[in-house]
Amino acid sequence: MKSNPPRLEPKADKDTVRRHNLSLVLRAVHDDGEATRAGVAARVGLTRAAVSSLVEQLLDSGFLTESGKTFSGQAGRPGTVLKVARTGVAGLGVEINIDYVSVCVVDLSGTDRVRLTEHLDNRAAAAQPAEVLARAAGIASRALLSAEEHELRPVGVQLALPGLVSGGTVRQAPNLGWTRVAAEGVFAQALTAARPGRRPLPVSADNEANLAALAELWFGGAGRERTFLYLSGEIGVGGALVLNGELLRGAHGFAGEIGHVVVDPQGPECHCGSRGCLEQYAGQRALLRAAGIDENAGLPGVAELERRARADDERAVAAIRDAGAMLGLVLSGAVNLFDPDAVVLGGIYRTLMRWLSPTAGREMDRRVVSGLWPESGGRLRASSLTGDAARGAAALVVREVLADPVAYV
Amino acid sequence: MKSNPPRLEPKADKDTVRRHNLSLVLRAVHDDGEATRAGVAARVGLTRAAVSSLVEQLLDSGFLTESGKTFSGQAGRPGTVLKVARTGVAGLGVEINIDYVSVCVVDLSGTDRVRLTEHLDNRAAAAQPAEVLARAAGIASRALLSAEEHELRPVGVQLALPGLVSGGTVRQAPNLGWTRVAAEGVFAQALTAARPGRRPLPVSADNEANLAALAELWFGGAGRERTFLYLSGEIGVGGALVLNGELLRGAHGFAGEIGHVVVDPQGPECHCGSRGCLEQYAGQRALLRAAGIDENAGLPGVAELERRARADDERAVAAIRDAGAMLGLVLSGAVNLFDPDAVVLGGIYRTLMRWLSPTAGREMDRRVVSGLWPESGGRLRASSLTGDAARGAAALVVREVLADPVAYV
Repeated sequence: MKSNPPRLEPKADKDTVRRHNLSLVLRAVHDDGEATRAGVAARVGLTRAAVSSLVEQLLDSGFLTESGKTFSGQAGRPGTVLKVARTGVAGLGVEINIDYVSVCVVDLSGTDRVRLTEHLDNRAAAAQPAEVLARAAGIASRALLSAEEHELRPVGVQLALPGLVSGGTVRQAPNLGWTRVAAEGVFAQALTAARPGRRPLPVSADNEANLAALAELWFGGAGRERTFLYLSGEIGVGGALVLNGELLRGAHGFAGEIGHVVVDPQGPECHCGSRGCLEQYAGQRALLRAAGIDENAGLPGVAELERRARADDERAVAAIRDAGAMLGLVLSGAVNLFDPDAVVLGGIYRTLMRWLSPTAGREMDRRVVSGLWPESGGRLRASSLTGDAARGAAALVVREVLADPVAYV
Repeated sequence: MKSNPPRLEPKADKDTVRRHNLSLVLRAVHDDGEATRAGVAARVGLTRAAVSSLVEQLLDSGFLTESGKTFSGQAGRPGTVLKVARTGVAGLGVEINIDYVSVCVVDLSGTDRVRLTEHLDNRAAAAQPAEVLARAAGIASRALLSAEEHELRPVGVQLALPGLVSGGTVRQAPNLGWTRVAAEGVFAQALTAARPGRRPLPVSADNEANLAALAELWFGGAGRERTFLYLSGEIGVGGALVLNGELLRGAHGFAGEIGHVVVDPQGPECHCGSRGCLEQYAGQRALLRAAGIDENAGLPGVAELERRARADDERAVAAIRDAGAMLGLVLSGAVNLFDPDAVVLGGIYRTLMRWLSPTAGREMDRRVVSGLWPESGGRLRASSLTGDAARGAAALVVREVLADPVAYV
């Protein structure tokens, strides 16, 4: 039984405590949207005087703004309203997917302020990984110019990539055709080269479904689930597990790869090297092909699929329903393993939900062993409109600022 | 973004701090097996004087014993060796499975001190749930008499049940044929009735695979994985996920049900109401049937299967290999989702490992998308001999004592 009992923490010095409390106050204002000094004091459990001093420092450093007058609801002086700043420190998210790059700048409140999306073919057959990363860095540098116009200053870059990412390197991204690409380093160098004379920005990389799931967690609306399975339907089928409001990354950072759960061991070959993976039945290409649409038509092809389904085109509807049944089959296993509150379908699944969910739901209803699906507990729903991997990526940078604002002054 | 920022904790009073520190010292001795006061002081970061005072209280209350003399390795007085007591406070675990009940008493060190196993048919067709629980309570009361002989005093009972357990109730145990059985309450009442004049013991219930996984975590040997997927092969196929040394329970407590992941959507009906579940291909009955042995032969049947496989009986070997391939197929999906360091096979799989693992490993090698299986990271291994659900259950009771010994004086 080696469980390393907790050790007593060394006594925190005054600076550390103040730094921690600055974060506490900033996060309180951030989470509530707007707040008074008295409201913050009540929420974080510090004295009004201590909060006032911390607020002054956050105002001076540009993390907070104050405006107007309000009554605190208690006897005494009216307080001004505090909000997190809409200018200054910001986050930059860069999603590199198979057929597009989407760049997003969010401010300290997490709001999407600049968005630049370009459609292009990023597969290794069309462009080498270094070229793809350099093009994405070019797009990012243009978004950074727009950010400047809005007086926003991104302090870090988070890449979102459709593959297994660990230690800054893409271990494998089957649909891009990438193996062992040092994405963080290559992108950072390209971004620095694209912005001569500017300070280099720190770059991190993660899996796109992980970041889309975080966006769903943070921006999916009030009262949403804290434990859910997220599926990102694109050319690949990505996934992520969120457990009690935290990403479950697994032992090596590769958890969530639901697209490569096997539906039929003798099924069609998959880019990952296996056979009969879910992606081969419910990925974008399989869906388009089954509906009689060019499988390489990309997002316009998905729009065409949706149009046909709306027009009750039998083949289109059957293609989506069949994919839904395959999703339901695999999801029932995933729910039996992970027992989430909800399964959230994002990417192209969001728009196809109306036809996917009856067949997927039927499979889950029959096969989820707890009987909790769907009537008395779990639910299958579309992702919210407001979150995607690029926004989740940018917001992750902002989260780091909120955790220790002093480091970003 | 409603993430409830941490509030400052109210100042702990002196009693709370001492209570916490008593647990800290007791766990330090427990985790190290034996320790000196100086060793404990270094480990927990308290002064030697404070540790001495805490140790005196733990000796007086019977949680620790001291013996012999040792040199601390440093200059100064020799210290005596502290160990956790081998008498006194203990834990009682009761595993109720399909065809046996196993009861275990462990002492404060987690050592298995009393074991009583009875083979009987616990299915609803043979006996009502209340009868099964009453019989198990009878077995438990006999084990408690043995515990008394050893001067052990169990302070709580943990039930291990082959089904979905939540809030003290078995929601569903397909192989027992139980639905909504208030196991905790019924067992507690039966145990009290079986021990007239004795103080009633608190009873908790959990899933048997969860408790077997905890036994593997705690007693599986030094340096074992902290993140693993555990499979318990019995008449049912149970499972549990351990993430960073903690059970992953999911949103409703039902995580880990790998036996009901679908292998073939059109496959044979399963007791759970679905079709083609893993249990129908790799459960004990399916294995025996495929080998040409009576599927209801129970553990003697499994012994016969192993004997035949050792004698190179083709049908027996093929049956195990086929089950291994099905296990590998489902495990590759589970590994893609959860990314563990290892997959641990317990129950009947432990003894069949030699024939299971080549086919299971081959599937996983081909289908785990990270490529981490098996050569460079993850591994498939048999559970250790030393852990099972009953011992995990009993040890869980002891863990609660270690967390707050004062509550058990």
